[in-house]
Amino acid sequence: MKLLSIDSSAKAASVALTENGRLISQFFQASALTHSRTLLKMAEDMLSDLEMKVSDVDCVAVSIGPGSFTGIRIGVAAAKGLCWGGDKPCIGVSTLEAMAHQLRDRKDAVIAAAMDARRGEIYNACFLPLGDGIERLTEDRAIPVSKLMDEAKESGKTYYFVGDGAELCYNAFTESGLPALLAPEPLRLQTAWGVAMAAEGRAPENAADLEPRYLRLSQAERERLQKEASN
Amino acid sequence: MKLLSIDSSAKAASVALTENGRLISQFFQASALTHSRTLLKMAEDMLSDLEMKVSDVDCVAVSIGPGSFTGIRIGVAAAKGLCWGGDKPCIGVSTLEAMAHQLRDRKDAVIAAAMDARRGEIYNACFLPLGDGIERLTEDRAIPVSKLMDEAKESGKTYYFVGDGAELCYNAFTESGLPALLAPEPLRLQTAWGVAMAAEGRAPENAADLEPRYLRLSQAERERLQKEASN
Repeated sequence: MKLLSIDSSAKAASVALTENGRLISQFFQASALTHSRTLLKMAEDMLSDLEMKVSDVDCVAVSIGPGSFTGIRIGVAAAKGLCWGGDKPCIGVSTLEAMAHQLRDRKDAVIAAAMDARRGEIYNACFLPLGDGIERLTEDRAIPVSKLMDEAKESGKTYYFVGDGAELCYNAFTESGLPALLAPEPLRLQTAWGVAMAAEGRAPENAADLEPRYLRLSQAERERLQKEASN
Repeated sequence: MKLLSIDSSAKAASVALTENGRLISQFFQASALTHSRTLLKMAEDMLSDLEMKVSDVDCVAVSIGPGSFTGIRIGVAAAKGLCWGGDKPCIGVSTLEAMAHQLRDRKDAVIAAAMDARRGEIYNACFLPLGDGIERLTEDRAIPVSKLMDEAKESGKTYYFVGDGAELCYNAFTESGLPALLAPEPLRLQTAWGVAMAAEGRAPENAADLEPRYLRLSQAERERLQKEASN
């Protein structure tokens, strides 16, 4: 099965083509350009440089959040567009789970995927590395770093951080004397290859049913609710 | 400094753009297509998707071998072409050193870069991981796996294998009870990002002076010498 995977859930964007789990191509970009300009062009270039068309792809996978509201919307919209055009099935995966797969060969540590969620919080989920897979230990959630530190103290384990909130957590952990590791670049940021690994073996769904999973209300929604409450 | 890095020294091909050591973009392909068709197109697409031109690049880095004779020639020729067009300097790096950089954050092991050199041999060099760099322990060389096993026995260390000969070595080591680790995909194969890391801090040279480093004679040369010897 040829799987086209997409990630644009944070500052970087990437596309990957895997065939039965094997990475055939990946195109990664961490520039200042907006994903709405680059993402589909990168997918098009990757496929054309493989002498392939979107119609040769069997399924599309995409990270559906948590992450940047705009980034997730662009990724999910791109996936829906690619699927609808050729009537293809789709697989939506957790951004945090996708990046945790990038460290699945690391042993003796809890993989802690962390994205900077602003307002003193991180988007986080924890996983156990199993070599060729991962085991989920927590749900995707928005929590303060201090909560994760409490859990780490209780577990007595080393936490291995990945994601754009990794450095933030790593610094907080080491300052408190908690054992922590930091994923090396370029495994630190989420990639379409991680999305492909997270999608592997999952049942595809109808692209129309694909929904972003933000975990939090957007700023506009928060402000509207605050305004309504104060009126 | 904006560095364009190129690798086509084995079955995969990739291009990367780094700025002062930071990975801005990487385009990787491990397909059955020939590098002579894909490599320059990938570089062109990567730069254009970054809204850049070759003229915006300050320097070109390329893996000059060991590896596939044809692959290395394509990579070195592409690098020379890109440099000459814009009168840019060039940095040639060892393929084995480039891939070892991909594991430089791994601790407590010797990084053994290994490419399948056919005829019972591997192209190999060994390195110590230093976190943000590596220390070279051996020269680039073509040796039988048994020689590497003798060295490993003597050192008493775990060998961490990377490269398209990694699995071959890993199997030989574990069958003999020698401690060995296998780099996870996609760090297993050499990448342009590895080339960029190996090139970092090196003095650029004139592109005209860039030469492939094959370590062995090509099949055509071997056969000619054999023919001359038997005549």
